[in-house]
Amino acid sequence: MKRVNVGICGLGTVGSGTFNVLTRNKIDIDAKAGRDITVTHVGARQVSPSCNIENTQFSTDIFAVAEDPNVDIVVELIGGTTVAKDLVMKALGNGKHVVTANKALIAEFGNEIFAEAVKNRVTVSYEAAVAGGIPIIRALREGLVANRIEWLAGIINGTGNFILTEMRDKGRNFDDVLKEAQELGYAEADPTFDVEGIDAAHKLVILASIAFGMPLQFDKVFTEGISDISPEDVAFADELGYRIKHLGITCRRPNQGIELRVHPTLIPASRLIANVDGVMNAVLVKGDAVGPTLYYGAGAGSEPTASAVISDIVHTSRLLNGDTSEVEYNASVPHLGFALDHLCDYNILPIEEIETAYYLRISAIDRPGVLSKITQILSDAGISIEALIQKEAKENQNHVPVILLTNRAVEKQIISAIEKIEQLDSVTDKVVRIRVESLK
Amino acid sequence: MKRVNVGICGLGTVGSGTFNVLTRNKIDIDAKAGRDITVTHVGARQVSPSCNIENTQFSTDIFAVAEDPNVDIVVELIGGTTVAKDLVMKALGNGKHVVTANKALIAEFGNEIFAEAVKNRVTVSYEAAVAGGIPIIRALREGLVANRIEWLAGIINGTGNFILTEMRDKGRNFDDVLKEAQELGYAEADPTFDVEGIDAAHKLVILASIAFGMPLQFDKVFTEGISDISPEDVAFADELGYRIKHLGITCRRPNQGIELRVHPTLIPASRLIANVDGVMNAVLVKGDAVGPTLYYGAGAGSEPTASAVISDIVHTSRLLNGDTSEVEYNASVPHLGFALDHLCDYNILPIEEIETAYYLRISAIDRPGVLSKITQILSDAGISIEALIQKEAKENQNHVPVILLTNRAVEKQIISAIEKIEQLDSVTDKVVRIRVESLK
Repeated sequence: MKRVNVGICGLGTVGSGTFNVLTRNKIDIDAKAGRDITVTHVGARQVSPSCNIENTQFSTDIFAVAEDPNVDIVVELIGGTTVAKDLVMKALGNGKHVVTANKALIAEFGNEIFAEAVKNRVTVSYEAAVAGGIPIIRALREGLVANRIEWLAGIINGTGNFILTEMRDKGRNFDDVLKEAQELGYAEADPTFDVEGIDAAHKLVILASIAFGMPLQFDKVFTEGISDISPEDVAFADELGYRIKHLGITCRRPNQGIELRVHPTLIPASRLIANVDGVMNAVLVKGDAVGPTLYYGAGAGSEPTASAVISDIVHTSRLLNGDTSEVEYNASVPHLGFALDHLCDYNILPIEEIETAYYLRISAIDRPGVLSKITQILSDAGISIEALIQKEAKENQNHVPVILLTNRAVEKQIISAIEKIEQLDSVTDKVVRIRVESLK
Repeated sequence: MKRVNVGICGLGTVGSGTFNVLTRNKIDIDAKAGRDITVTHVGARQVSPSCNIENTQFSTDIFAVAEDPNVDIVVELIGGTTVAKDLVMKALGNGKHVVTANKALIAEFGNEIFAEAVKNRVTVSYEAAVAGGIPIIRALREGLVANRIEWLAGIINGTGNFILTEMRDKGRNFDDVLKEAQELGYAEADPTFDVEGIDAAHKLVILASIAFGMPLQFDKVFTEGISDISPEDVAFADELGYRIKHLGITCRRPNQGIELRVHPTLIPASRLIANVDGVMNAVLVKGDAVGPTLYYGAGAGSEPTASAVISDIVHTSRLLNGDTSEVEYNASVPHLGFALDHLCDYNILPIEEIETAYYLRISAIDRPGVLSKITQILSDAGISIEALIQKEAKENQNHVPVILLTNRAVEKQIISAIEKIEQLDSVTDKVVRIRVESLK
């Protein structure tokens, strides 16, 4: 059995998980890979108490791993986009294959990193960068290779999904659940990255580039967080037969471009993805041949993420072929699914140009004619109403919530209609607007 | 771009779908594969009106495709296990790679076929043989390669799932829905293969062999169909918070062996897989590192199946490397995930030895003491009761249904207890027994 030497950089949550799963399941993993996969060098600031690395070379300087002539594959698990980028570029320059779980690094610097890999005839694998343990990169790049992808939508941030699930199940408000998520370790002390959609945007841009065959364009993703979602809206969505999920959505609009957006979304409760709860992740992909397919699993955590990292290590090991260490580069799958010279720089549509349906919650003074004025404004804008709920005013209140579901319209149309609605004397507050997708 | 010549045998539903998707999406597929993938030879009894094969060599003798020196990959889509087997063995003997969608062929003759492939240093791919368009073989063999699989459970027959979904949604009975499924083309004139679980058993045995690394043993699968499921039981399951699904289940019982079974199963309605409805398929896989993951999509149909067939064609094309047509065999994934010499011939447990929970429906005469006698029998057998429903007798009837959910017990224990229950004077009919799985 050919020996493959692996160097792991970083022994945090994912690094120690990777080391431990590789050790625990070594006999089976080797039997599947047809290679003796051995961690020969670990670089980390300190040894993790959960890892027994006594037979492994250890360096506090992670760059020593990228320079180690005996290491075939460098596994970058330190996170961030500064030192991690230097490490990856160094490893590639030294002709080593790289495996990484770093979504920010790939989303923001992937184009440059993949070019460097191609130049050196080595590969960069990043299955763990999107949706943790779910083999979604492999599914998109290989399993669905026959398809023109029409759209995909994913619950790709577990923290956000946990918060929305708790809000719905228990009628709690956002701040209250966020606090609990922080206590449980699901959310960071500064939750911006998760709840404002930046983490999801990192993952979405990677999925979109593979789906459509285009360079990574992180700065083009529209993001809207979930911190303004109220328990009221969660309950009204339920009443209408919908759930609110924080989705990353990308779709191809023929002759116009690509939509690339992360925002709270009402989706029909009958869709499978609407029932993905708690910290779990799922990605729904619509291909022209296969139709809709869905991939579900843990989107984070030590061993789920390690599962994806190791799948990349095994895949890369298979490329280290025969008796020489020269990579059989031609057998590898292109980094973004399509060969680099076939990527197409599609237009990314600005958010004003996207098209969805909308949920609107309007606070109106309870007097005759209000509803007719609102519906007239929408009708003038060419927007029709699919469903409407009007509740009685609560005691001691003279305004009532009016809930509308519209049909599909271009975003700038609805924004302009909402401005007019907000100018009505009888409308007392900002209109709440949440996008709606049927995911059919 | 290296040219790869594909020969398609069979132009039925899947064959014509494969030809058409390869043609329609050729520019994108080639750009992803890095190969010029061209169908150069089609063998079929007759030309399909849906395929434009005018630039392709056509033979009514499918064996001409396997003999064609210009064909690199033979795609077997004729079905059955006689001619199809001869064709595949001939192609392998001629040093050609094979792609097949034939679940019966792989389940029943896979061991022999894979051995012939290894002998000739070529590969047999069969992603389309299980769950149609869902890339589940790839997920199990590659995406989850780091994991020891603990168990998997799948809805892997669309016909059966359609029938059970209709029975639940509309309170219809089995025969009535079957008739509709036949009219819609979802079920064959002879529905045995689908509704008695044989088709699911073919797929399950393939999944189990990959999951655990063992030779294919189709004759060891226990199968029980859904034709005895009554609308009553579907409704009682609902009342208890469960759904009835026809599942293929395999799990590892440490130090004992492998369970391998297809049968109707009550599963908690809150599980994602319980919400997979209609003709759709899904496979839930539990790995030791990744936890539960689920894969969902169309399990049959022309283009969904073609999607899987083409993913195998592309994968195989990548092995046809560089400027020679010699396969870079060492880079290929072993047929059953594990290298053939690492397969382990695990004990397959007979159905009497498996362990699950049970749903029991007992028709009892409505008189004092019946329930106490039933519960005494179960208690004596060491079986405890998790939930119980007793309904009032309907007018003009003197017997009542007693519904029990038990905890987990070995099958032979429950069978013996049921025999005793059926001997009670007050029990008027055979006890209905359906297995229950928590899928946690």
